[in-house]
Amino acid sequence: MSAPGSSRTVVPPEHVFDWLDDAAAQRADAGLVRTLRHRLADETALDLAGNDYLGLARDKRVAGAGAAAALRWGAGATGSRLVTGTTELHAELEYELARFCGAQSALVFSSGFAANLGAVTALTGREAAIVTDKYIHASLIEGCRLSRADVAAVAHRDPAAVEHALSTRRRERALVVTDSVFSVDGDLAPLRELAAVVRRQSAALLVDDAHGLGVLGEGGRGAVHAAGLAAEPDVVTTVTLSKSFGAQGGAVLGPRRVIRHLVDTARSFIFDTALAPAATASALAALRVLREEPELADRVRGRAAELAGRLGEAGFGVSVPDGAVVSVRAPGPDEAVRWAAACAEQGVRVGCFRPPSVPDGVSRLRLTARADLSDADLDRAIAVIGETAPPSARG
Amino acid sequence: MSAPGSSRTVVPPEHVFDWLDDAAAQRADAGLVRTLRHRLADETALDLAGNDYLGLARDKRVAGAGAAAALRWGAGATGSRLVTGTTELHAELEYELARFCGAQSALVFSSGFAANLGAVTALTGREAAIVTDKYIHASLIEGCRLSRADVAAVAHRDPAAVEHALSTRRRERALVVTDSVFSVDGDLAPLRELAAVVRRQSAALLVDDAHGLGVLGEGGRGAVHAAGLAAEPDVVTTVTLSKSFGAQGGAVLGPRRVIRHLVDTARSFIFDTALAPAATASALAALRVLREEPELADRVRGRAAELAGRLGEAGFGVSVPDGAVVSVRAPGPDEAVRWAAACAEQGVRVGCFRPPSVPDGVSRLRLTARADLSDADLDRAIAVIGETAPPSARG
Repeated sequence: MSAPGSSRTVVPPEHVFDWLDDAAAQRADAGLVRTLRHRLADETALDLAGNDYLGLARDKRVAGAGAAAALRWGAGATGSRLVTGTTELHAELEYELARFCGAQSALVFSSGFAANLGAVTALTGREAAIVTDKYIHASLIEGCRLSRADVAAVAHRDPAAVEHALSTRRRERALVVTDSVFSVDGDLAPLRELAAVVRRQSAALLVDDAHGLGVLGEGGRGAVHAAGLAAEPDVVTTVTLSKSFGAQGGAVLGPRRVIRHLVDTARSFIFDTALAPAATASALAALRVLREEPELADRVRGRAAELAGRLGEAGFGVSVPDGAVVSVRAPGPDEAVRWAAACAEQGVRVGCFRPPSVPDGVSRLRLTARADLSDADLDRAIAVIGETAPPSARG
Repeated sequence: MSAPGSSRTVVPPEHVFDWLDDAAAQRADAGLVRTLRHRLADETALDLAGNDYLGLARDKRVAGAGAAAALRWGAGATGSRLVTGTTELHAELEYELARFCGAQSALVFSSGFAANLGAVTALTGREAAIVTDKYIHASLIEGCRLSRADVAAVAHRDPAAVEHALSTRRRERALVVTDSVFSVDGDLAPLRELAAVVRRQSAALLVDDAHGLGVLGEGGRGAVHAAGLAAEPDVVTTVTLSKSFGAQGGAVLGPRRVIRHLVDTARSFIFDTALAPAATASALAALRVLREEPELADRVRGRAAELAGRLGEAGFGVSVPDGAVVSVRAPGPDEAVRWAAACAEQGVRVGCFRPPSVPDGVSRLRLTARADLSDADLDRAIAVIGETAPPSARG
């Protein structure tokens, strides 16, 4: 049977997606099937997997501000930011976020993913070059792909490689793109060195500070602020409101003209429904809590350092945490999955990262510290991780 | 002054973004500057611009469910869906949404934009062809760009053009992508005809039902359900939770194996923080309200038809609404902006669409009906739109 104008054999509709089953079988063979586990509201497990670094997601001031905003403003923003979706809350959050981080201006997106898409695409384009660290977050990679720019991904944390790529670029305009704290290993980008390279090479710098905000810098102002770059005219920062701020959403921070440009041209801003009032209000409340309790940032870093130090003493291959993320090397992907599952059975939730979500092919447990982890929590975590470890994970 | 390894003159950092000012000046000359206006919680203007079609965003059951969820679950989901971000609420919403719409399975994303990116990219790829209606939503276009598929955009609402493109494609696998209700004019895609074409040509069909859910079909089950396609093995639907459901977020509906494939491969799902508990709970509450009050869908369509009918009688060039969206032709972009501003001054908020956000270059007012518009609201809207109209807008 063949279709009009075609020499193809017609595939019956129930077989059109058969290729998905083939792909699923391949993933199963490679041990790469992912499972959605849903948690309960009263779960008692110790969470070392989430990104609620300051423990603010369930803080009454933060959750309460969200609840109040839903009742006052409604459950949703009702439209895109440029039509009906911008409320007073969005404007307040943008003002306070820019001030807190030391930037001229800020723009809130519905997610950090959307903020990264918007910033990368709007600041580049076909006529631009992009040079990235090869370990940047997936959302930045998607932004690079969408941008149609000439993209070069260079060695991890290597300003000389960035400089070489910039100096040999074939486009006049250029943007260097990096995470501040890399999401898998929690290591910090050489931001000052990158800024110097960018200046020598007449480029601009875009830093995703998703894992830095609330954790690094004076009172949690982030890695870009800590590097003295927040107010620079050639530096743009993206952040998320869903990690340290315990809510949802993302933002771009930078020179006023950059923000204006995003309002007019960033498609992930213009064509997306605005962040809901509840999430906006919660992020604003979290920012205010952090401003009043700057010690929260010191505390999460201290907890991460203790967690890493004690796991290192126990013989594991542990990253030296620059922020809240601690990674522990596993012998392989299957061992990592079994290790994480055994921890969960013992009531400790840890992340499990394996290919293709790890850029270097190394499987690991990914632990995240929180400012509100008690000494007893740490003792329990370290005991459980040690007891459940595969024999070859040590040394 | 030139940089090491480069023959370029070094641009001082404060001039690196000068090109943004040039771009801004060009937009200003073309009348395309966009302004963020923030609304107040107690605004009294009549809103004919938002997408809260059923008036549920501020419904106490919907907003209250969001507030309760923020207090019970926390302000944010704390992580991606595959790590800590999936709660019982997400699982419940996916189950009920799939049942309501008549699909096998559903997957909630943090936005409709993210759902579209994920569905288009995960179901295509370099080795696939995509055929789209040329007026599809920007988020679908971004998905097509990201997919690296061979993309053909054909004439608006033209199954024969789709069939021609499919029959002459050079890739084996193919996906046809369309909006159900197009966002600018509110017109409906020929879904049954497209489904027939897709079957003759061994392709699959992806429908963005963002403006159909809650408005079209039996009790608001959407345009795909109305066309009898919701349970078909070769049809995938995307929806948003931020329009009729009054909340935030998006979802993909389709065969179970499609949803499983998205969980394992859709980058805008895997690498994004999960939808916040408040928005998830509000969407679920809105779904339940709609199930109990199926007349809401009839009501919004009735209000849209009356709005369009009366504006047509008054001599304006009005679209015939298939859903909740009514467009009114304006003589040009400047006239459209002034007309919308004059309506706002009289207390009626209307949307103003002009190039490049309109695919056909025609500027218009974009009005959206709501189920809770009273007769007095309609009278007021029609009077204000008439009084403020530029002389050449009629006839």
